[in-house]
Amino acid sequence: MKFPKLTIELPEWVNDFIQESDDVFPDVEARMGLAIDLARLNIEHKTGGPFGAAVFDQSGRLIAPGLNLVTTANCSILHAEMVALALAQRVLGRFDISDGGKHRYDLVASTEPCAMCFGAVPWSGVKRLICGARDEDARAIGFDEGPKLADWKKALEIRGIAVIRDVLRADAAKILKAYAETGGSIYNPGS
Amino acid sequence: MKFPKLTIELPEWVNDFIQESDDVFPDVEARMGLAIDLARLNIEHKTGGPFGAAVFDQSGRLIAPGLNLVTTANCSILHAEMVALALAQRVLGRFDISDGGKHRYDLVASTEPCAMCFGAVPWSGVKRLICGARDEDARAIGFDEGPKLADWKKALEIRGIAVIRDVLRADAAKILKAYAETGGSIYNPGS
Repeated sequence: MKFPKLTIELPEWVNDFIQESDDVFPDVEARMGLAIDLARLNIEHKTGGPFGAAVFDQSGRLIAPGLNLVTTANCSILHAEMVALALAQRVLGRFDISDGGKHRYDLVASTEPCAMCFGAVPWSGVKRLICGARDEDARAIGFDEGPKLADWKKALEIRGIAVIRDVLRADAAKILKAYAETGGSIYNPGS
Repeated sequence: MKFPKLTIELPEWVNDFIQESDDVFPDVEARMGLAIDLARLNIEHKTGGPFGAAVFDQSGRLIAPGLNLVTTANCSILHAEMVALALAQRVLGRFDISDGGKHRYDLVASTEPCAMCFGAVPWSGVKRLICGARDEDARAIGFDEGPKLADWKKALEIRGIAVIRDVLRADAAKILKAYAETGGSIYNPGS
């Protein structure tokens, strides 16, 4: 029995889009703007769910973008944050993005992380989590965010990870709403 | 800018090992035995951390094995459970292993899931989580299990996922201890 492999790969349009983007994203709004653009384009290109993410270094240089690829890659772990973290680690060549605490990278997510992505953040070595839409915005269109700690923000902060919420929240939430209104798949399992 | 891809792939020894294994794993102990063997062999082959997992269908047929590949693939999301879920979905060709609730598959993990893997379970569509060593056994050798809900077992059960703990716990915990005693890498990030 030979087991298959799974390749995590971004759709072709991402490379084209990034090539035309800025080189440096100087502040949290610019970084969130990219994550929201990725969510919007992921819907337009029908390459996955309405979620975008990205990892940036401290100077605002993009290390790796991420998209929700669950329905197109047939893989439930491929949330935008997971893809961004895995690809950033691939770009950097290390599983600890901070390299033993030496660097402070951001994970930017167009919507607050679900239970899985929340749990993935401490292992990744990012030092800031920047969120757009709130998890209640995701739940409002029917996405389940999973069993999260009531104070997940504090749980990250205790581990040295700063959390910044509500960055361009209205813009980010608008994408979620538009996705639901145009009949996008709400793909909670077993239901 | 062309972003790299990440391929999740099991080491060659896994195929050889599975070929020599039973075809059907009739009960939870047999299924756990395989997960523990995978953890042990992962240490022996130096292909990752001391954790094994697998997805089985209801009849006990192995769908996909999983190994912790964090240090060898340089990717923090590649815990054994995540690899087993992603590869099982690849084998089955669907992101919801239950296929809309029609099937009852098991995820078997040699150690209780960390915060990330716990959060991944509801999205995956498995209907039972079978655990060997307890998370305190992992913490005892220095692995951080992350910020988990105090009653994570109940949180899964509420979502229709049965949790069976302590299956061959002593055997599973022994593997963790042996890993630590032989100087295995305890790779918590940023520390």
